[in-house]
Amino acid sequence: MADADEYGAQVTKQGSLVRQLKKDGAEPEKIKAEVDKLKNMKGELEKLLKAQSASEPQLNRAAFDQMLVRKFFVVPSFEIHGGVAGLFDLGPPACGLKANILNMWREHFVLQENMLEMDCTNLTPHNVLKTSGHVDRFTDLMVKDDVTGVCARADKLLEDAIDHLIDNNPTMSQAEKDEHLLIQRQADAYKPEEIDVLLKKYDVKSPEGNPFGASFPFNLMFKTTIGPEGTSDAYLRPETAQGLFVNFKRLVEYNAGKLPFAAAQIGLGFRNEISPKGGLLRVREFCMAEIEHFCDPNDKAYPRFELVKDKVLTLFSSDNQLSTGKTEQMTIGEAVGKKMVDNETLGFFLARTQIFCERIGMDPARIRFRQHLKTEMAHYACDCWDLEVKTSYGWMECAGHADRSAYDLTVHAKATNTDLVATKMLSKPQTVEIAKIKLNRKQLGMVFKAEQRAVANAIDDLAQSWANFEPFAAKLEADGKAEIAGFEVTKDMFSYEKKNKTIHEVKYTPSVIEPSFGIGRILYSLLEHCFDIRENDEQRTFLKFKPVVAPIKVAVLALQKDKQFEPIISDLKASLMDLNLSSRIDDSTASLGKRYARADEVGIPFAITVDFDTVSSSTVTLRDRDTMQQIRAKISDIVGLLKALCTEKMVWEDVVAKYGLVAGADEEGEEGEKKPQGKTFIQSTGRGRFSRPTVV
Amino acid sequence: MADADEYGAQVTKQGSLVRQLKKDGAEPEKIKAEVDKLKNMKGELEKLLKAQSASEPQLNRAAFDQMLVRKFFVVPSFEIHGGVAGLFDLGPPACGLKANILNMWREHFVLQENMLEMDCTNLTPHNVLKTSGHVDRFTDLMVKDDVTGVCARADKLLEDAIDHLIDNNPTMSQAEKDEHLLIQRQADAYKPEEIDVLLKKYDVKSPEGNPFGASFPFNLMFKTTIGPEGTSDAYLRPETAQGLFVNFKRLVEYNAGKLPFAAAQIGLGFRNEISPKGGLLRVREFCMAEIEHFCDPNDKAYPRFELVKDKVLTLFSSDNQLSTGKTEQMTIGEAVGKKMVDNETLGFFLARTQIFCERIGMDPARIRFRQHLKTEMAHYACDCWDLEVKTSYGWMECAGHADRSAYDLTVHAKATNTDLVATKMLSKPQTVEIAKIKLNRKQLGMVFKAEQRAVANAIDDLAQSWANFEPFAAKLEADGKAEIAGFEVTKDMFSYEKKNKTIHEVKYTPSVIEPSFGIGRILYSLLEHCFDIRENDEQRTFLKFKPVVAPIKVAVLALQKDKQFEPIISDLKASLMDLNLSSRIDDSTASLGKRYARADEVGIPFAITVDFDTVSSSTVTLRDRDTMQQIRAKISDIVGLLKALCTEKMVWEDVVAKYGLVAGADEEGEEGEKKPQGKTFIQSTGRGRFSRPTVV
Repeated sequence: MADADEYGAQVTKQGSLVRQLKKDGAEPEKIKAEVDKLKNMKGELEKLLKAQSASEPQLNRAAFDQMLVRKFFVVPSFEIHGGVAGLFDLGPPACGLKANILNMWREHFVLQENMLEMDCTNLTPHNVLKTSGHVDRFTDLMVKDDVTGVCARADKLLEDAIDHLIDNNPTMSQAEKDEHLLIQRQADAYKPEEIDVLLKKYDVKSPEGNPFGASFPFNLMFKTTIGPEGTSDAYLRPETAQGLFVNFKRLVEYNAGKLPFAAAQIGLGFRNEISPKGGLLRVREFCMAEIEHFCDPNDKAYPRFELVKDKVLTLFSSDNQLSTGKTEQMTIGEAVGKKMVDNETLGFFLARTQIFCERIGMDPARIRFRQHLKTEMAHYACDCWDLEVKTSYGWMECAGHADRSAYDLTVHAKATNTDLVATKMLSKPQTVEIAKIKLNRKQLGMVFKAEQRAVANAIDDLAQSWANFEPFAAKLEADGKAEIAGFEVTKDMFSYEKKNKTIHEVKYTPSVIEPSFGIGRILYSLLEHCFDIRENDEQRTFLKFKPVVAPIKVAVLALQKDKQFEPIISDLKASLMDLNLSSRIDDSTASLGKRYARADEVGIPFAITVDFDTVSSSTVTLRDRDTMQQIRAKISDIVGLLKALCTEKMVWEDVVAKYGLVAGADEEGEEGEKKPQGKTFIQSTGRGRFSRPTVV
Repeated sequence: MADADEYGAQVTKQGSLVRQLKKDGAEPEKIKAEVDKLKNMKGELEKLLKAQSASEPQLNRAAFDQMLVRKFFVVPSFEIHGGVAGLFDLGPPACGLKANILNMWREHFVLQENMLEMDCTNLTPHNVLKTSGHVDRFTDLMVKDDVTGVCARADKLLEDAIDHLIDNNPTMSQAEKDEHLLIQRQADAYKPEEIDVLLKKYDVKSPEGNPFGASFPFNLMFKTTIGPEGTSDAYLRPETAQGLFVNFKRLVEYNAGKLPFAAAQIGLGFRNEISPKGGLLRVREFCMAEIEHFCDPNDKAYPRFELVKDKVLTLFSSDNQLSTGKTEQMTIGEAVGKKMVDNETLGFFLARTQIFCERIGMDPARIRFRQHLKTEMAHYACDCWDLEVKTSYGWMECAGHADRSAYDLTVHAKATNTDLVATKMLSKPQTVEIAKIKLNRKQLGMVFKAEQRAVANAIDDLAQSWANFEPFAAKLEADGKAEIAGFEVTKDMFSYEKKNKTIHEVKYTPSVIEPSFGIGRILYSLLEHCFDIRENDEQRTFLKFKPVVAPIKVAVLALQKDKQFEPIISDLKASLMDLNLSSRIDDSTASLGKRYARADEVGIPFAITVDFDTVSSSTVTLRDRDTMQQIRAKISDIVGLLKALCTEKMVWEDVVAKYGLVAGADEEGEEGEKKPQGKTFIQSTGRGRFSRPTVV
């Protein structure tokens, strides 16, 4: 089959041939022949484009969204009061799913890597976020409808305009398309004056057709005040990270002074999004899980990197984004080796994130890591890779992995006049030239009062290296005064002499590597990736949650209403509870097949059915959601099997191998026949829930 | 020993005798004799009071607070930036402790009672909290220092003034004392004009000695706005409950329409406290765990009440608070039977809360349930009992258990014109008289436009009972118009006729019973209750966390630094991780005794030590923190033992019975001898960590 992109280029060529013929005044028959050919080609192209999109995973978003609300996974917050854009509540099944994902995250990252977990406050005073740069720079560019006063995000308008342009020009050449897509990819990195030009170029108007005013930065933090006097400005934290940075001193002490180490935090973040769309993917209040890994800026090796180096990732480097537009499959070892990924620590976390996504049951074919463009990154950042997950909304950022260098600790240290440093023992003592300072404290105190300590510290810091100190000293000798850290000091404030000093350790400000996860987005993506439809039955949807994340592990059913089943079911429920296995009893009068379907629909991986054989032989059937196969075993065995299945000590195939299938079990609803496996509309990856989890 | 209260009354009597003698101009010798007697009596009284307070549990708060910060349990938030009153961060050990407590809470309440857990947003729009009453009434009375402008809470000032008065008058009669204490207990229930009178009576001044202005209500919610236009007022939720109430319709549907059922939520609450003191006990941002149990107002029986009815609680009824001032020990069955506790459901939750507190390791002798005084309760509330826990700050409210009747659902239903009701099948059909309505929709629409549905619903509701409808109809006939739900309707808008109707079910607004837990306060109380000191060694503090809640379950130590121990230790760590048992390797060069002490200090219940026998026989020692006893067993056995100990399938005594103690193990630090058991400064209760948990 021809490639739609290539064929599109031929259509474009044919179109310009027709235009040329018309321009040249060629014979009508000749023109007509070429026009007919062009028409045929356009029809062909349309078919190609349709076929191409059909071969990609498709999701019936309307049906999916309806299912989310109907099954009480996610509902708009304060719905009966009219709701608030960008706020959603999680109902019982999503709440359980989220708790399981967070437990796995904690085990996968915090426990495995011995991270120090903290729980810091959401309310954050002004000075902390002023220091971090959020008060001044945590903004989105906003434009205002000149007529209605309604506000919109400038970058999203630009992105939408480009989508619209491309969608409405199926014959656009790949080259032209690439040009637009390049602009689209950089949409959130433009300055106000740049984006204003682009909005004009793409002729962006408000939905009502009104012009927008010039763009301006809008701060995304929710503001409030603390205390009854109303004078202490504060914000809801936009990220959990700052709480860890300001606690660095205590963290490093707790870790007995050793580096590298990581701190972690699971908690809320708040962003006053300008006009949130995209359901669960752009919300104003969200759960985050963040890691701050502190290390020596000159040594970003990771001791356990060896364990992940052969893990293959789909990487979308900044070079490729600006050239081919294509991703590459590569082991993380190779990517770090050729410096595409800056260092081992960053590489280790990319690989562990990939493994985490697979462990919770995401489709690996819909996961990639995209490197930030230079223009997207803050000036101090070394490298940054986003985990992007493909959903029906396109590729969505679900986690960031940024090497933020020493920026965060440096700004907080400076603003608070606190040492936020680590100490490194030298392998052998070194002799260095320093300036030995003798302060005239009286004079310093008289001039600088409360700030004398800051001045003294600045002089002391500079004096640690004679090479750094000398120019300052020279100026002081020449002018009688000199500036340091914003203060003007005079000769009479201290004396100094050049000395040799033997040092055994050095102090340094650690670099920070920050993997940061948007749990809400991961939850949503997982729901999409797990949504499936039974072959030949479009009405029968199911959620193929892996047993380890499924909020409810097992449905407990009776073959039919019968008093004698009741004590068996309540004993069973108690045994399951004892092993911490959540269960749901469905005692409705629906047929067994309907009740299985109902359990499938909310992603319950297993179902136990109590029947008359249970009364005589203490055996029950156990049904697997994905294969719809059943086995029969003693109740006491079944509970143990379930525990093993839900903690990934065993897979369904092991169970079948041991107990054999129940012959002729045909309670599967109206159809009366067993289907082998759900028709997946995701590409098969060979890494389904039957493969054991990759353990690093 | 004489009772200090009684003796105090004698001292007061002697004092008044002396005053009378002076007044009567008695002989100086006689006066002197009585004055000397009075002086002696006062000295005696002081001794009595001292002895009395020493017999109560004492905590060295300074040492304890220092430990909390030093061991990174709790630190002030944003400390390096100067901190914010009422905000605290949890460091790694407290973070782990909190996670374990929440897991137990979830299992104890949500799973055991099949509750529907939700996760609603913290940001809450104005209209929701206006409806709930928080915008108008969620206030504390505040006074302002006339001179400095500093604000303070009126009720706390009154409480402190009474404490101060009593402390400085050791001879005050019990009767007088009781009078003051009664006022103190009602401090937060007074109206502004009442408290102003009391503040004047007790001569309350600001710390600077300035007078305060009149008290006024201050709203405790943090305010912000949502959206870029800044026009949508919102608050940070002061409780999680509202999110559950506004979702009632979906919750009851999810529960297949069945009542009773409970919804639950674990999340944050925010209160802009006026002048927070008391460390972790009065904070501005806190974790809550709330339950909303929905039930028939006419049937508050609880099916599982039978299981808890013999549980003995310490109850402090409102009657006793206003009379004897003493608590009573009583089974919850008796308390509900005599209507001291209003109903079975409320009683069930009180008992379950008591059991939960015992399960996590609180001291039962320091737990009581205090009933709200009539003046403390909202007008709609039926009954309310606080879980109070004794700490070094006195008795602190850690959870509330309120029967809020149908208030919450009623106000939200009214404000949103939504049915928030449940349906009850009648045991046999009933015939009722109703009004059958025929609406003139055209006329209604013309007059009421968008509000026509609200009017129609109001007429319809009234028409469900002829008895209710008749007076309205009579007025309409007489005047041609009548008022309904704030609307004036006229005769031409509908016709009606009286009819009999057979009904099979009735709709009703459920009552809400709300157990609400302050997790931060529970955490703090638990830390105080677990803090202990080794007998004969004041320097050696330890935290006797129960294994099930301990953040780190086991310390892994080597007898000494030795290469051959390293692989054993890392294998051991991996095996523990595999069973989800958190461990800490202490590879410092400190003596084994010191390292045991260090593990005790942060509450690690067990320690494994690898020594030379491990290399030859694969055995290790296992040490129990509380008894400091050790056993020796195969590594493979030890890991299983630990799992059983930490999931309460086994207790230490079982382990000792099976493996026997290690003879002559004397690594316990400098002392070189084994101490049998920590000296507890809490009263012994016979329900320590060696008794199996009460399972209901």
